[in-house]
Formats: sequence, structure tokens, C-alpha cells
Amino acid sequence: MAHALALGRRSMGQAWPNPAVGCVLVRDGRVVARGWTAPGGRPHAEAAALAAAGETARGATAYVTLEPCAHHGQTPPCAEALVAAGVSRVVIAAPDPDPRVAGKGAAILRAAGVEVVEGVRRAEAELDLAGFLSRFTTGRPWLTLKLAATLDGRIATATGESKWITGPRARAEVQALRARHDAVMVGGGTARADDPRLTLRGMGERRAPVRVVLSRRLDLPVESELMRTARGIPVWLVHGAGLREAAGAPFAAAGAELVEAPVAGGQIDPAGALEALAARGLTRVFCEGGGGLAASLLGAGLVDELVLFTAGLAIGAEGTPALAAMGLGALAEAPRLALVESRAVGADVMSVWRRGG
Amino acid sequence: MAHALALGRRSMGQAWPNPAVGCVLVRDGRVVARGWTAPGGRPHAEAAALAAAGETARGATAYVTLEPCAHHGQTPPCAEALVAAGVSRVVIAAPDPDPRVAGKGAAILRAAGVEVVEGVRRAEAELDLAGFLSRFTTGRPWLTLKLAATLDGRIATATGESKWITGPRARAEVQALRARHDAVMVGGGTARADDPRLTLRGMGERRAPVRVVLSRRLDLPVESELMRTARGIPVWLVHGAGLREAAGAPFAAAGAELVEAPVAGGQIDPAGALEALAARGLTRVFCEGGGGLAASLLGAGLVDELVLFTAGLAIGAEGTPALAAMGLGALAEAPRLALVESRAVGADVMSVWRRGG
Repeated sequence: MAHALALGRRSMGQAWPNPAVGCVLVRDGRVVARGWTAPGGRPHAEAAALAAAGETARGATAYVTLEPCAHHGQTPPCAEALVAAGVSRVVIAAPDPDPRVAGKGAAILRAAGVEVVEGVRRAEAELDLAGFLSRFTTGRPWLTLKLAATLDGRIATATGESKWITGPRARAEVQALRARHDAVMVGGGTARADDPRLTLRGMGERRAPVRVVLSRRLDLPVESELMRTARGIPVWLVHGAGLREAAGAPFAAAGAELVEAPVAGGQIDPAGALEALAARGLTRVFCEGGGGLAASLLGAGLVDELVLFTAGLAIGAEGTPALAAMGLGALAEAPRLALVESRAVGADVMSVWRRGG
Repeated sequence: MAHALALGRRSMGQAWPNPAVGCVLVRDGRVVARGWTAPGGRPHAEAAALAAAGETARGATAYVTLEPCAHHGQTPPCAEALVAAGVSRVVIAAPDPDPRVAGKGAAILRAAGVEVVEGVRRAEAELDLAGFLSRFTTGRPWLTLKLAATLDGRIATATGESKWITGPRARAEVQALRARHDAVMVGGGTARADDPRLTLRGMGERRAPVRVVLSRRLDLPVESELMRTARGIPVWLVHGAGLREAAGAPFAAAGAELVEAPVAGGQIDPAGALEALAARGLTRVFCEGGGGLAASLLGAGLVDELVLFTAGLAIGAEGTPALAAMGLGALAEAPRLALVESRAVGADVMSVWRRGG
């Protein structure tokens, strides 16, 4: 199952709207085939592994990180395919909360006389699949927030200079993080100030993450790196109500997709924005700032994982803070995250923190 | 020599104004005695090791982290003591820059027919002894700056709440850091706001670090934890000119020592303050803030080592910044430090950075 989990992780950021699943077929104590969800979500991991195994699947044990699907979608149900291939035993990590599957996949297998073991390394699988699972439970994707700041928590000087605070190794880690997410998200202020491209560099041939910009009034330049590349790599602009026709037209014409989200307190409601993104199939979103969006996501308790890069320099209090005002009344109200990992990455420190601290 | 260096480190924070030296006597491949500078700086490491060795010192090799002293101070010169004890070979890590010693210690040994080897693990020894050495080269002590902040670089909420941002394990590390320094230093604002005691807790019987407060106008409360304990554990108040008589009197009466330092730009000149502390014998100073003092020390390039504790919570931009304004014109002017180490300390991350980044 550890091997199946590792295979599933290969599809992170690639499989959406489907889950990034891994599958290993074992017969007579030997791995006879492996599979993982293909880019775009099809074929599923089980189908890939069965195709690779051919006749050797007969009598094998399938280790699969998520309950095999039971519904006829664009591919036939994997539970039926496992039965048809003659697999004799299926070991499952996590149950599928999708109401079209939920327990039905295991039931199909059992009804056909296949032995089913459930819940093996379930917690690990549920962490890997958290974004897919939370679309059903909370209606939102998994959200990773990146902060890359100085020793004193600054992301730019008073004059806006921010290139480069962290070093090349940290920036390469950010590329790897982008690649493991379905989408990269920034606030409108960052899009205006930095004119970022938000593409993958140096990661080989991969499905590129969707570029998402939150801008209530769509007050973004149409002439920008994002819009210039919008026909090749998706750009989704999340905006407030009533803007689709007039303000949205030039962006739509340039290839961007317009996503309407609720507005609260004069800005796009961050939970509403994430729900709109989940409704469009995103399971894992990587937010790269700016400080306003980061603060509102943290303040609303929407950050599942925070990746902090700390660089060995100091800017002082005039610098732009990594997080904008949060309006806390007391220290006890401050959002707390639990440390997962910390290590040196080149000249910088990378620390990973998760909800539940 | 590695063993001698470890022994010398035992005296860090204890030996001032003398250097924290270690000495190992080896005869026939066996350690026959060990010594390190005693609290208060006397006896010296060599004297302690020779006393422990007695007659077994004859024909032994002495490994010593600093060139043995050559001058008659309150103890007889160690170079002569080594000769008298019949040591046949002395291996030295670092030369002593003290003009009363500088080369004379090694010369006394050689003149007496003792074999002398110099420069073994010199860089390590010079790092350990940096504060003692820099008193001669720069006229200042080694300065370690501690920052204990949230993920976004804040040390208190807008209402001044700061207990507790970091966890008990991080606070225990801070106690250990205090113990390895001759003095703990804070700015006047921190002394007023937090009324800290700045003593050692849970570190056993040790010479307590001097408590140093920088306050240009001595506008500090006489009724405070610091002043209440000033007769037992030294309190040094660094102030601007002309305050000794009037403003200083109640503090002096309560047991504090008054240290005059130059004023520049409306505040105590941080380099001048450190020079005044070095002139009084301090070799290692540990600054615990606040943000104003930390920023001025970093801005003036006076920080030798920075220890950053990062806690897994976020306060937002209204919180008190770990570093006050630094007045940088461009990112290239930002002080840079090199990463030495980073690790989890309980629920927090501790990272250590040093000059020369």
C-alpha cells in the first residue's frame, strides 16, 4: 500500500477533477503491474494497472488507495473491471465519499466473491486525497498557502522590491509545490504589482496548474503575462456579481474563464471563492499571496497547509508584511498550525505547518 | 582538541572577563586530567588541569584551546606553570590577541624546551572564543540576537499580548542560550512593557548573566522585577550623558550599575553601548529585543548570530513587528545572515543564522 500511495502522489495536480489514486497488483508475492490516475483523471489507476497486467491479473491482489468506482462515467466502473480481470482480493486504503460510489464499489467486489480489506493506511491516503474528499465534505478544495519572507516576516521593501528574497533552491521547491496542485491562486493586488506568469518552469512535461486570480471588480490589466498566455494555460478570474458582461468581456475574449463568487465585507468571500473553484473540479489549490488574501484565508480558517520559506535577511517594519491585518482581538484567537517538518533548503529554511495545531 | 573545545564551552557565560578555555592533558595515549576556566575566570583551564594531574603531568601533552597566558595577573602565568609541571608538548588551537600574551606564551614554552604546535582546530576555537577575541579586535563583545515570533514575524498582538507565542521547549532553549552568555540585554521599551526578570530558570547553579537595559534617559520604573533583584544579580543600566547624578541616583541606590554610552540620532548608539559593555569585561551578550533595539543592532551590522524561534500562529499586520523600521533604501542594503542550523524545538522551529551570509 505504501507503494500504491507513492504512485498516487505522482498524479497530484494532474488528475483533477478526479482523485490522484495509485494501484499495485501483486501475485505470488511479486508486483505484476502498477498504475496511477492519468493526467486529466482518466484512465483510472486500476484500469491502468489492469491493462499493464493483462492475464497476470487473474488471482492477484490489488492494492488501491481509494475505493474502486462503481458508476458508469466516461470509463467503465473499476470495481467491475477488477472482477472481470479475475482479481481475487482488493485491499483499499480510503472509502470514496462520492455518493455514486460510497460503499458500492466494495459491494460490487464482495458480491462477485472478491475478498475486500478496507482501511489499510487510511489516514495517509485521506491526507493525500484530502482535496478530493473535502469537495464532498466541505465543498472546498485542499488549500496550501505559501509564504516566502525575510527573518522578520516581510515579503518586499517599502518600495516594492521583492526579487529575490529567497534563493534558487527555495524557488525550485515552489515550482515543485505548484506542480503538485491543480491551481495556483493569487490576489488581484499581487497580479497587478508583480505581473506574474505563475507557470511551471523546469518540471518537465506536466499538465500545468490553472492560474486563478481573485479580483472583486476585475480591475486587472488585460495586457499582462497571465492574459498573454491565457489561451495556452487556463486563467480563471474570480470576481463579484454583475461583472461578467461589461468588465469581464475583454478577459473572456482573451481566453480567461470568469468565475463569479460571493462578496462579503467589500471583498470576495474567501470560502465562497474556494467553493466556486471546487464546483469547477479543483481539488488542490496553492495560494501564493499576497498578504491580504493570505490573511483572509488564514483568518477564515481555510488554510490546510502552510509552507513558510524564511530567508536570512531583515527588511524592518517599513517592509510589506507577509500577512495583512487580521483584526484579532486576543492572542487566543490567532490561528494556530502544527509543525509538520522543517529543513534547510539552500540558504533558506522551509517549514511546513498544518491545520490542527 | 575536540574534547578541550567541548570543555571550554562549559565555561561560556561563566568565565568573563576571561576567555572560556578548555585543557586536556594526555600521557601515553590516555587522558590524565581535564580543566576548564572556572566561574569568574580563575583558575584558568591549564591550572585546573595541572592541579588535577599532579605528578602525572610530567611528560604529558597539553591540548589547550587558547595560547597559555604569559603575564603575572591574579594567577601565575600558565605558560610557566606548564613548564614547571614538566609538560613536554603543548598543542594550541588559537593564539591569544591580548598584547600581554600574544606570542609570549608560546615563546616561554619553546624557550623551556617544550614542543609547541599551534593552529589545531583554530577556526572552531576562534568561533567559541569570538567574544573574547573581538574585545581586542573590534572593542565589542560577541552579540547574539534572539527573535521569537509568529509565522508572520510578530512578537505581540496590537494590544501587547505576547504570552505565550513560543512553546515551553523553545523557552527552555532560551534559558540555555542565556546561560551561555555573560549578559542578557533588552531595550528600555521592553523593560517597561514586560517588566522582565531576565534571570536563569532551571539551569542549576551557575553564575547568572548580567541584566543590561539600554535606556537613554533612564526613564525606567525603579519599582520593577529587575531592580527588586538588583542586589543579588547584577543590573547594568546603559544611559546617555549627564544622567548619573540626578536620574541615576535611585537606580544606583537600589544596586544597579550605571554605564554611560554615546547617543546618536536620539538613541543610544548601539556600537557605543557594546563598546562600553566590552570595556567592563563582557565577552558574550544575548539581546532579547525589543524590535527597536533589534533593528538598530541589525542595521548597524553588530549582530554576530541570530536565533529565530518561529511559532505556528499568525497575528497579522496589526501585531508588533519583531523588527522595527530599519530605513533601508533597497533590498540590496538589507542585512544578510547565513543559515547555520534549523530544527524543530517542540511545536516551534528554531533557526540559527550567522554573520557572513
